[in-house]
Amino acid sequence: MRILITGGAGFVGSHLCDRLLKEMHEVIVVDNLITGDINNISHLAGRDDFSFVKYDVSNFIFVPGKVDAVMHLASPASPNPTSPYGYPQLPIQTLKVGSLGTHNALGVARVHEAVFLLASTSEIYGDPQEHPQKESYYGHVDIVGPRSVYDEAKRFAESITMAYHRYHDLDTHIARIFNTFGPRMRLDDGRAIPNFIVQALKGKPLTIYGDGSQTRSFCYIDDLVEGLYLLLQSDENYPVNLGNPQEMSILVLAEEINRIVGNKAGIRRVPDGRAPSDPQQRQPDITRAKSILNWEPKVDLETGLKLTIEDFEKRL
Amino acid sequence: MRILITGGAGFVGSHLCDRLLKEMHEVIVVDNLITGDINNISHLAGRDDFSFVKYDVSNFIFVPGKVDAVMHLASPASPNPTSPYGYPQLPIQTLKVGSLGTHNALGVARVHEAVFLLASTSEIYGDPQEHPQKESYYGHVDIVGPRSVYDEAKRFAESITMAYHRYHDLDTHIARIFNTFGPRMRLDDGRAIPNFIVQALKGKPLTIYGDGSQTRSFCYIDDLVEGLYLLLQSDENYPVNLGNPQEMSILVLAEEINRIVGNKAGIRRVPDGRAPSDPQQRQPDITRAKSILNWEPKVDLETGLKLTIEDFEKRL
Repeated sequence: MRILITGGAGFVGSHLCDRLLKEMHEVIVVDNLITGDINNISHLAGRDDFSFVKYDVSNFIFVPGKVDAVMHLASPASPNPTSPYGYPQLPIQTLKVGSLGTHNALGVARVHEAVFLLASTSEIYGDPQEHPQKESYYGHVDIVGPRSVYDEAKRFAESITMAYHRYHDLDTHIARIFNTFGPRMRLDDGRAIPNFIVQALKGKPLTIYGDGSQTRSFCYIDDLVEGLYLLLQSDENYPVNLGNPQEMSILVLAEEINRIVGNKAGIRRVPDGRAPSDPQQRQPDITRAKSILNWEPKVDLETGLKLTIEDFEKRL
Repeated sequence: MRILITGGAGFVGSHLCDRLLKEMHEVIVVDNLITGDINNISHLAGRDDFSFVKYDVSNFIFVPGKVDAVMHLASPASPNPTSPYGYPQLPIQTLKVGSLGTHNALGVARVHEAVFLLASTSEIYGDPQEHPQKESYYGHVDIVGPRSVYDEAKRFAESITMAYHRYHDLDTHIARIFNTFGPRMRLDDGRAIPNFIVQALKGKPLTIYGDGSQTRSFCYIDDLVEGLYLLLQSDENYPVNLGNPQEMSILVLAEEINRIVGNKAGIRRVPDGRAPSDPQQRQPDITRAKSILNWEPKVDLETGLKLTIEDFEKRL
């Protein structure tokens, strides 16, 4: 297949490129590089089966030649208000790529009668009142809060994707991606794992906001990419959660990273400076992914962290 | 002021035109007439202080000369799946006008440093789990259900409006409009009041789906327009509910219309054929509108219905 990946220079996108190329597909990446990084795909430059266009998909998407699949991943994705790559710093771009960008990407898929996959997010559940989150949960999003630029943009993206499926008969897929980690995450992305690893590698105490009891579940990138690839090939049009249901507190995560790195500086608790509406708890129910895609995460946390730490060491 | 009204040929928009012209403002209407009706504004043709452009605001908006305010009302708004004017028949247009259209309208406001008002909707609350609905309620919307084309588009529109306020310093206002009725509603709009009035005037029994116990609250158009005008002039940037808190069952409404019209054909109950996710109950909490705008509905239901029935009689 000839596959267009928007946001293909991002963390998830670039791993997806590697995987699809390995499966003998041809890959075209469109990315404006405002949060993606050219270094993530520079190892692919010059290949006959790979091309890259630096362009903002919110404006327009033109791809010469036939496209068989469109995978729409483009979006800022870090909630951290202090990171230059966080959507709180890029609110309008985030809203635009979720709406105008999704509309453009669906347009390409429609013209080519291509398969379409939307990279949605667990953020559409907002600060959930139900645990773990099933796909049938309607979510709990503050429509006009600062985080809504991402959450509502992605909710909109899901809605328009379903509309193209229903009314234009497009073969569409929606992945609700939960927290994912791995090599190539931005060092200054602002999320917990990169923050902790950078601090641990520098021998500094790991900063925890509040008491560290807020929980997350972390999926290793290779597992997620496998799920995305299976979903693309499936017959499922309704949203499917992709994430690791193994839940842990931020405190336990920090201790594990210190242990693997051998960092003796410990942990530093600071008053809760988390982004407004930062959810206290989030965990995917992956019953649907298991039954529909026969998928579940395989990489354990320790293995994933070691691979990620190795990559961070090289880049620091 | 020179005021741009998108969707100004619609039911609400055209009444807003009348009111603003009466207040000595100049009005420019942009409307693609897919659900609006040129007859709603034909009485304004030829006035120096009024102009109309037939155009789809989802594509692009160009207005020659300075604009002081932008009121973005354009959107299909009837949930009825059988009406040609209902958003279930116009899913992609509804999604586009809520996202691309709102983005374009905000762009005009930004260029002109104009005041911006978004006509949002009680539908952003979905099938609410809280009664009555306060503005602080996050809502209960099925993201990928058929109604989401309207609900999620409007949630997105609110989110991008707030983002333009926060990050581009635009003076924005968000009205969450609850059920409204009055002259100029489309006879075949598919909503309860037009359906009932048309049936009553034809001497037919009024069709009620299910047992008629589902409740609604109906605001007369003049009250709503007053609220919109006050909100436009206010300092309030967060959403404000505008609607009539007087709740009644669909059954009581039908009986009242039969009584006013003098229709002896009674009521006909049919199995529940309502649109999926049609909310069982919806009622605005207007505490904020009262305190911020010193606004509350003044027209009682009987008066409103009589004025509406008069208009329908002329048009039938």
